[in-house]
Amino acid sequence: MIRLLLVHESGLLRSALASVIGAEPDIEAAACAWRDARSRARSLEPQVCVVDTDSPAADKAARKGEWGKFVASASGEGGDCGLLVLVNSERPGPLRRAHEARALGYVDKDAPPQRLIEAIRRVARKERYVDDALGYGFLQAAKIPLTERELGVLSLAADGASIPEIARTLHLSTGTIRNYLAAITRKTGARNRVDAIRISQCEGWV
Amino acid sequence: MIRLLLVHESGLLRSALASVIGAEPDIEAAACAWRDARSRARSLEPQVCVVDTDSPAADKAARKGEWGKFVASASGEGGDCGLLVLVNSERPGPLRRAHEARALGYVDKDAPPQRLIEAIRRVARKERYVDDALGYGFLQAAKIPLTERELGVLSLAADGASIPEIARTLHLSTGTIRNYLAAITRKTGARNRVDAIRISQCEGWV
Repeated sequence: MIRLLLVHESGLLRSALASVIGAEPDIEAAACAWRDARSRARSLEPQVCVVDTDSPAADKAARKGEWGKFVASASGEGGDCGLLVLVNSERPGPLRRAHEARALGYVDKDAPPQRLIEAIRRVARKERYVDDALGYGFLQAAKIPLTERELGVLSLAADGASIPEIARTLHLSTGTIRNYLAAITRKTGARNRVDAIRISQCEGWV
Repeated sequence: MIRLLLVHESGLLRSALASVIGAEPDIEAAACAWRDARSRARSLEPQVCVVDTDSPAADKAARKGEWGKFVASASGEGGDCGLLVLVNSERPGPLRRAHEARALGYVDKDAPPQRLIEAIRRVARKERYVDDALGYGFLQAAKIPLTERELGVLSLAADGASIPEIARTLHLSTGTIRNYLAAITRKTGARNRVDAIRISQCEGWV
């Protein structure tokens, strides 16, 4: 039996997906939201964790560093839980984040359920699974034009911080922040700062 | 038999939800994405349409006026399709939009599947169904602090338009747009224009 934990924000959708997956004779599926993910992972010790990366909740969990802690909780001391992510092929940011979290399986959110079930069996055997539909997304994920520092500045700006506030948070001068914001606007091909935030959010970079 | 059409962007999640709903003996469930919603509605003539209102795709469809056209296509000449929406109780914007589109049923996205199934049967009988969990969301929806005009200005600003561009689009002076943006910032309790956009997007107003 494959013990599986599915993390998704909507109770309705995660119940439905868990019930379809759990109908397979060799899979036992539990499901929860991000807020319960670590405690459920610790008590269940799943062999496979399926995480929907394409939601504001997943983005927020990533900003708070919850992904790594969750994967560590799921793996326990034995360290043998395989991470399988559901990704939107049009948002390279979450795909990159999943890659950094050493996900073993990658399934397009537009795939038929049968493909997810196949991927679950592969990841349970510690084999890599990459959905064909995601090839382009992987290429895009490698091409985020901003540096980590620029992404940090942009992230604070997107949260509504002013230039002096960003400068204080990052211990930099306001002039330096202005330079970063100008570089970000240029590199994203944006018309202005608000446009740069919009583009980066659409692409899933921040 | 209740003929039902479910509109949701993710192929994986809509298949799973349709399969859980379609397992009921009295419901026949089909599912599609927004891009196919109108043509599927026309050919299927469903008695109930279930729409997930809480996604960037649904927001985009709303901005393009697709909701009204979809409901009209589903109703056909007889005009008897009931709209049932899945809503996130923390985002009053889509809830308000669903109300404007004369939705008959409102189910929280965090509800158990059985509650959605009950709501489907009620809406098929032309009865109203409002999930208890959404009471607070409805109150919030009634309290969007911005006028239609202000929401229009904010929507363009959130798309990255500059003040002169917004002025040209709305046939107003740049001074007037500046006044609108100042009023928006004040009314949303924001620190600045970017913060006002962020707050309004979080609340689902734009």
